[in-house]
Amino acid sequence: MSEAALRVAYQGERGAFSEAAAHRLLGSNIDGVPLPTFEALFEAIESGSADCCIAPIENSLFGSIHRNYDLLMESGLRIIAETHLRIVHNLIAAPGTQRSDVRRVYSHPVALGQCMRFFGAHPELEAIPLHDTAGSVRLVLERGRRDEAAIASETAAGLYGGTILERGLEDHAQNFTRFFLLAGETSATTIATIEETRRWKTSLILRVANKPGALFRALGVFALQEIDLSKIESRPIEGRPWEYAFYLDLVGRDSDPLLARALSNLSDMAELVQILGSYPTRW
Amino acid sequence: MSEAALRVAYQGERGAFSEAAAHRLLGSNIDGVPLPTFEALFEAIESGSADCCIAPIENSLFGSIHRNYDLLMESGLRIIAETHLRIVHNLIAAPGTQRSDVRRVYSHPVALGQCMRFFGAHPELEAIPLHDTAGSVRLVLERGRRDEAAIASETAAGLYGGTILERGLEDHAQNFTRFFLLAGETSATTIATIEETRRWKTSLILRVANKPGALFRALGVFALQEIDLSKIESRPIEGRPWEYAFYLDLVGRDSDPLLARALSNLSDMAELVQILGSYPTRW
Repeated sequence: MSEAALRVAYQGERGAFSEAAAHRLLGSNIDGVPLPTFEALFEAIESGSADCCIAPIENSLFGSIHRNYDLLMESGLRIIAETHLRIVHNLIAAPGTQRSDVRRVYSHPVALGQCMRFFGAHPELEAIPLHDTAGSVRLVLERGRRDEAAIASETAAGLYGGTILERGLEDHAQNFTRFFLLAGETSATTIATIEETRRWKTSLILRVANKPGALFRALGVFALQEIDLSKIESRPIEGRPWEYAFYLDLVGRDSDPLLARALSNLSDMAELVQILGSYPTRW
Repeated sequence: MSEAALRVAYQGERGAFSEAAAHRLLGSNIDGVPLPTFEALFEAIESGSADCCIAPIENSLFGSIHRNYDLLMESGLRIIAETHLRIVHNLIAAPGTQRSDVRRVYSHPVALGQCMRFFGAHPELEAIPLHDTAGSVRLVLERGRRDEAAIASETAAGLYGGTILERGLEDHAQNFTRFFLLAGETSATTIATIEETRRWKTSLILRVANKPGALFRALGVFALQEIDLSKIESRPIEGRPWEYAFYLDLVGRDSDPLLARALSNLSDMAELVQILGSYPTRW
């Protein structure tokens, strides 16, 4: 790892799903900075101990992660790329472990919660929550016991030398998570993602007056320029009952003259327009 | 409990948050039908073993529960009421247990995942996932050990005779879950919720042609009649990349002439309009 490698913060330990998202967007030559919480990612950029970070923002089963939208809004960081990762959970153990010997299974509580059918079908298994999926693999391999396993990604298995005993433990196959790559405004322009696609998106938070038709008129600025929306979601505003903010993703780049015009018109009519970033998208 | 009491299915055991939502909407004289999964709720109504059911549909931290929207769409059930519940997690143990003696804490993995700061601050505690919050309280009280506790609602503590050792363990105080009361179309009209409010909503799923401005034109039918939206959310359609369905909540009742007119106009222009229900809302 060279000194010039980009320092990329993510929640979890080495081998976490967020790390896989970082590799997909930035290649393998990065300096990963694993941190325990999402709050710590934003702090790491603020303090200069990381250049950018990876944050999950929505899941195909559970919707938008409002908490991370809040952190993103408050931070003033910019989205510089996005990717989607299929979440596949595997049962991983020390080499030589027999599936039938496993009794204790470690993983992050969210991962355990996504494998409830598996545990329902195997009442002999005790599920034990830890802070991290990949960290669970590390623990199981360190202990080397033949009655223990972890639930995590294939990457985590490879990283710690674990054997995959069973694949695809998740209850629902259509389990995708969307990740943002985030950086401070000044460094955002200097970070090149490995494969720029022709598809760009621009994400923003919109707040309009609490009147019937206000959202309709705001969306009119995009219809007028034939700009496509790829996401719209209302969210109640805390402490202001019946008022809403909206998450909007537009198809296009903010340097496109039509999109720039639409955003300018939107700013004239809205109470708040906060641009979160304009970025290439990669599946 | 009289024979005529309404049979209300919900996921979890007695004392679950869903049961509290049922009581808020229907009063105390109901015949609760606790079931292990969300799929089982819909099957119970299909088979006639329950008259209606309670399903969580979105959370203020984690967004819409797409899986339950899917089950609702496929089932053809109708929303007959909604309520919002603040999710407060408590540490509950057998009477006489000292907080300092507790070492093992049981709860549903999602609840454990919402109390990660608490566990981070108390490394002496082992978190053990079970299928249900209220069921964890029952287990702890049955075992009566002085080194065990559960995380669940205050209602669950009262129901099983547990003592609350610590309140408000959740990481984020703004943790609200929205619940729907659902029933088959024929019985929906006969189920009276205890307190009808003046505020009604109508929920629907909308699919429009994949063209710029299609959503804008669809929303025009509501702007024209000055009908307010209280929720809009796009969701990618599985297997049809870049096509979207929308969840819409309108303020008003489908028997209002203006709203009925708007829905009729919408049906003329949309590829799909599926009304999920028109119902009173209660906080």
